[in-house]
Amino acid sequence: MEFPWDELTLAFSRTSMFPFFDIAHYLVSVMALKQRPGAATVAWKNPVSSWFTAMLHCFGGGILSCILLAEPPLRFLTNHTNILLASSIWYIVFFCPCDLVSQGYSFLPVQLLAAGMKEVTRTWKIVGGVTHANSYYSDGWIVMIAIGWARGAGGAVITACEQLLKGDWKPEGDEWLKMSFPSKITLMGSIIFTFQHTKHLAISKHNLMFLYTIFLVTIKVTMMLTKNSAVTLAPFEGTLSRMLFGWQQQFSSCERKSEVKPSSNGAVSTSSKPVPETPDSAKKHAKKED
Amino acid sequence: MEFPWDELTLAFSRTSMFPFFDIAHYLVSVMALKQRPGAATVAWKNPVSSWFTAMLHCFGGGILSCILLAEPPLRFLTNHTNILLASSIWYIVFFCPCDLVSQGYSFLPVQLLAAGMKEVTRTWKIVGGVTHANSYYSDGWIVMIAIGWARGAGGAVITACEQLLKGDWKPEGDEWLKMSFPSKITLMGSIIFTFQHTKHLAISKHNLMFLYTIFLVTIKVTMMLTKNSAVTLAPFEGTLSRMLFGWQQQFSSCERKSEVKPSSNGAVSTSSKPVPETPDSAKKHAKKED
Amino acid sequence: MEFPWDELTLAFSRTSMFPFFDIAHYLVSVMALKQRPGAATVAWKNPVSSWFTAMLHCFGGGILSCILLAEPPLRFLTNHTNILLASSIWYIVFFCPCDLVSQGYSFLPVQLLAAGMKEVTRTWKIVGGVTHANSYYSDGWIVMIAIGWARGAGGAVITACEQLLKGDWKPEGDEWLKMSFPSKITLMGSIIFTFQHTKHLAISKHNLMFLYTIFLVTIKVTMMLTKNSAVTLAPFEGTLSRMLFGWQQQFSSCERKSEVKPSSNGAVSTSSKPVPETPDSAKKHAKKED
Repeated sequence: MEFPWDELTLAFSRTSMFPFFDIAHYLVSVMALKQRPGAATVAWKNPVSSWFTAMLHCFGGGILSCILLAEPPLRFLTNHTNILLASSIWYIVFFCPCDLVSQGYSFLPVQLLAAGMKEVTRTWKIVGGVTHANSYYSDGWIVMIAIGWARGAGGAVITACEQLLKGDWKPEGDEWLKMSFPSKITLMGSIIFTFQHTKHLAISKHNLMFLYTIFLVTIKVTMMLTKNSAVTLAPFEGTLSRMLFGWQQQFSSCERKSEVKPSSNGAVSTSSKPVPETPDSAKKHAKKED
Repeated sequence: MEFPWDELTLAFSRTSMFPFFDIAHYLVSVMALKQRPGAATVAWKNPVSSWFTAMLHCFGGGILSCILLAEPPLRFLTNHTNILLASSIWYIVFFCPCDLVSQGYSFLPVQLLAAGMKEVTRTWKIVGGVTHANSYYSDGWIVMIAIGWARGAGGAVITACEQLLKGDWKPEGDEWLKMSFPSKITLMGSIIFTFQHTKHLAISKHNLMFLYTIFLVTIKVTMMLTKNSAVTLAPFEGTLSRMLFGWQQQFSSCERKSEVKPSSNGAVSTSSKPVPETPDSAKKHAKKED
Repeated sequence: MEFPWDELTLAFSRTSMFPFFDIAHYLVSVMALKQRPGAATVAWKNPVSSWFTAMLHCFGGGILSCILLAEPPLRFLTNHTNILLASSIWYIVFFCPCDLVSQGYSFLPVQLLAAGMKEVTRTWKIVGGVTHANSYYSDGWIVMIAIGWARGAGGAVITACEQLLKGDWKPEGDEWLKMSFPSKITLMGSIIFTFQHTKHLAISKHNLMFLYTIFLVTIKVTMMLTKNSAVTLAPFEGTLSRMLFGWQQQFSSCERKSEVKPSSNGAVSTSSKPVPETPDSAKKHAKKED
């Protein structure tokens, strides 16, 4: 059954994002913007600012990758069709009579469908970023990973900077210090697709896109169905942290002794806030306790 | 009398900004910088930082448009004549014996002349930004509007970011959340000049430049003569908000009901701070009350 | 003995930074990062973020100069050898068993050697920045000074912005308002090398590089041996401030009178915080008092 499978994945990898998946992405982004306290008021008091923020939410990843590659950050404005699409969705979401869109979006199936389709666009963005960076630096695989990551999950960085400029900055919304789950999984995907692009992974791109998209969508839907994301995240977090930070476990016994003397307050903050993204290391600590 | 009129506007549109209008622009910008508390002290304690801030105030719009088009933000430093001009004005304003310049600038006629000439440069900047963006994206009219806006009124954004870096940031000095009057009127002008440039406005460029400049200067002088800018702004604000945000009035009756349930604090903040830039909508609310 | 001297300086100016001096630079930068409170904890909780910060500390100057010249800020990631070098040093410093590196670095001779070698790389960076900017703007000597400065001392600006994004921003760590000694001396060196490059200084480049490097290293070592940097800095500070801000002394008598009326709080803040970088002007004030 290899042949129909290949046909399926090829057809899937050739589907265009334009009308429907982009709409889902814009809808989810604008709704996420509207959930922010006071966003509706801003939209009424200063529509231009609200529209600008909505555009940043919709095209943030592309803007960040443009900045990182020294391309005009305004280039996304030349794609008039998508701008028109995102603007009309922003218009409908914020100014629809009797707020019909928000009420329709409040139904779980609609949210699941939109979120799943948004995750599909994430795969396309990562692949696009990796190939685009490859056209700049043919062997700069670190740049490819970074650009793929920026395209896929950089919107949060852009919106964080914009909130910083606006003055309503929340330090817990910081993307650097503690990566959110989407950014982690996007980084993983960006690494995988870069390795595939540099022929270090013996898998065809359309198969990888299909599998990664299935992975993303299933995780997202599971997270939304079982509200407490921590439990849902734990196994993936463990895999990810073992895959990325696994090497740090071997030193942990010695580091605990030595970590006390160089920076005491650092050690204090360790004990104060437990480490959420490495549950197995937490288990190790628990083992050491008794 | 069409011929002399055309001759007049043509001659006006061909006047060079260089010696005198630029001087007025730099003078107004540096004086605005000196009005800031502690600026004079900084100039004495750390002239380099003060000079840098003055340059940002003088060339901020160009820097922002360079950033948005991925051009070297330092390119303004290659125009040695203007840098020398702005630096000498900064030097005279801050270090003139017995502060003669500030005393001379405190006379109203001088301020009116300088402010009026500065508004003239604003027109030239908008036109330059629109044509420059057009050379990049021949049909990207949104980019043309944005670049024209950035050139004309982007200095405030740059100086805001610089204040943010310096740590003395005032959230009420925020440009995004509540546009100042100059940025609004610059946005309007940028839109008009873009439509003219894309042949959607049946008026020659030199006529439009003449009329828009007259419009800017008269508004600016009127605002400075009648201190309370709110009254002066009201009609223009009304026109502008009807031109930009007019469509939101039709839904306001229904939106008031629906706005309560999605975000209560948003509705609260609406009632707490009234909408200043749409006085007629305020009137509508008053009408609804009784 | 002119010939051996020339031979010596030529050989010195031809030494490659790559293996050893770069290692010293990365070591000093990463150790400076580790000194920050909580850095070790962040490295354990979120290695990716810590690695990113370490890269910003190691390559900040290059990133800033890339941004100022509208080149891809990620270009430093294409230099895989240096990235690998810096990453391994970051890895060793943060995750070495029993923290051996920090203990070895705590010995003064090691610190002196590393700091001295780091200062050598500063000269190379300034020269590289000046020549690189010259390839863009052949006569833009202000840009050459700025880029040389950014390459040599711009890392502090980048890390400050990154701290601002992270939320743990300290306004006294601000680089604009009060330049640190390295940035001042880098600015001086950038000016000197620019003048040499534009043939305004009758000295060969390799001689200038040798002398400036000796100057840097001696100052740095002296500062580290005599802990109280203020005393060590005073003479150089005096020379620098006379060289840069000397012209402001002639007006100070009149400016004191005139400074009171424009901005009272400015004058207050003057009296509150004394001027550290112009000790001779402070003496002048003292003279005026009696």
